[in-house]
Amino acid sequence: MTIAPERTADLYPSRGTSEVITPRKDPVVWSQSGAAGPFQPSELSDFERDGFFAIGELLTADEVAVYRTELDRLVGDPEMRANPRSIVEPKSQSVRSVFEVHKISEVFARLVSDPRVVGRARQILGSDVYVHQTRINVKPGFGASGFYWHSDFETWHSEDGLPSMRAVSVSIALTENFDTNGGLMIMPGSHRHFVGCAGETPKDNYKRSLQMQDAGIPSDEALTKMADKHGIRLFTGKAGSATWFDCNAMHGSGDNITPYPRSNVFIVFNSVENAAVEPFAAPVPRPDYIGAREFTPVR
Amino acid sequence: MTIAPERTADLYPSRGTSEVITPRKDPVVWSQSGAAGPFQPSELSDFERDGFFAIGELLTADEVAVYRTELDRLVGDPEMRANPRSIVEPKSQSVRSVFEVHKISEVFARLVSDPRVVGRARQILGSDVYVHQTRINVKPGFGASGFYWHSDFETWHSEDGLPSMRAVSVSIALTENFDTNGGLMIMPGSHRHFVGCAGETPKDNYKRSLQMQDAGIPSDEALTKMADKHGIRLFTGKAGSATWFDCNAMHGSGDNITPYPRSNVFIVFNSVENAAVEPFAAPVPRPDYIGAREFTPVR
Repeated sequence: MTIAPERTADLYPSRGTSEVITPRKDPVVWSQSGAAGPFQPSELSDFERDGFFAIGELLTADEVAVYRTELDRLVGDPEMRANPRSIVEPKSQSVRSVFEVHKISEVFARLVSDPRVVGRARQILGSDVYVHQTRINVKPGFGASGFYWHSDFETWHSEDGLPSMRAVSVSIALTENFDTNGGLMIMPGSHRHFVGCAGETPKDNYKRSLQMQDAGIPSDEALTKMADKHGIRLFTGKAGSATWFDCNAMHGSGDNITPYPRSNVFIVFNSVENAAVEPFAAPVPRPDYIGAREFTPVR
Repeated sequence: MTIAPERTADLYPSRGTSEVITPRKDPVVWSQSGAAGPFQPSELSDFERDGFFAIGELLTADEVAVYRTELDRLVGDPEMRANPRSIVEPKSQSVRSVFEVHKISEVFARLVSDPRVVGRARQILGSDVYVHQTRINVKPGFGASGFYWHSDFETWHSEDGLPSMRAVSVSIALTENFDTNGGLMIMPGSHRHFVGCAGETPKDNYKRSLQMQDAGIPSDEALTKMADKHGIRLFTGKAGSATWFDCNAMHGSGDNITPYPRSNVFIVFNSVENAAVEPFAAPVPRPDYIGAREFTPVR
């Protein structure tokens, strides 16, 4: 007689035969109130309410220059272009994203362990944290596509195996985000419900979904209800500004026909108490440069 | 011996072997200062400087409801769908625009001759005016494409034969224009230079260009210079708001992933003293439901 291995309970079913919307079962801010760190208590309350918090200047102009240079180096490197970590824009054939930059760049590794960065992640997640994903993104001007509405957690749960909503992202602008160049849009408060999406995960979905989304997309009806209830906030800000947002915030971005590229560095922290298990709705986990399978805390 | 017919001089060459940028040779506001009408003198000065003027409430909410209903009727009519005046969105196969609505709808015919509308056009163009083009546009939510940067005059001159920059457009919002649903973007002051674009006009270009643009597109370099010099203004406003803009203003719009369609009615007035001649850079004029060949003044 064999005993089936213990499976982690699936709190957030998705990719089934129909769309199911369920209330969030996890806290948003996991630390005790008053936990020391860069966030003020009122800022943590705002994050809890809205599912995001924007910081006007997380990095100085001098620091931005350093990260911009490093981004340009990675994106322009012909060897990196051939690396599976690099995602190429279908239309222009230029590099749109490079994953796991904290592993391949000392400069970005330092950013991840910067107390202004990891300190805030620890406050939100109430524990030590590890890096689930990093990437640099370039949305070139003159017509680069945007990203359709999605909850990151839906994918990280279904395809990477994060059990609970105990992960947080920070997107740090390395170019100015205008109201015209395809900035991040979030529905404030949308993090309090989980949209379990209809449709099975295709095999090797990640290869297509990083360029073009298919699985894990909410219905028009669900998006309409959520937008009517929550509204849509467009984020603008200088280079060096940052948006912290909950793993389950419904977000997306439009295309960019302006001449101004929108570049950022994106870091996802997960609690060490929420380490990835087997994917909840995919045959195998995505590659570890997209969803980490090693859970060493950031120090 | 045959005598060649007299050709109108081409003040704005385009669609040649290379891109050529030339200063505007025409006034922006053609009426004497102080010409009576709905525009205040200071508003006409703003229009002259910026190439546009936005009006918070051109139509009342009750009027908007009437025009919205008429738009819905036309867009939803299966017969209209088969009419060549209707343009169908490639992705969703839904009707995106219907041309010449003032000819097929009494409701929109009344709007064209409304003194708040035609009165302003006469002030800008300094003469009696006729309708060069009308259309209703629906940019549905959930991913409708935008329109890339262009000067309308570049097309109206090259393909319809308008000799001079003596035409003006008004775009009247029939739904709210948010900062997130693909609103009109204009480069303020861009109307003072003409970008003569590189590339010959393909045969029957209009059939493709109304869905997807090819000819008449400025280079990345020209757009960068213009955006750096002028900036980019995104227009937002309630249903009933209107944007008047010069025929040579460089403008475009992004896509719309929000659930909120962006619908408007668009009217182009041309001066009766600037009536269309033979196209300046196309073998034959576009169909007259796109560019009028009949020049009866609006009364």
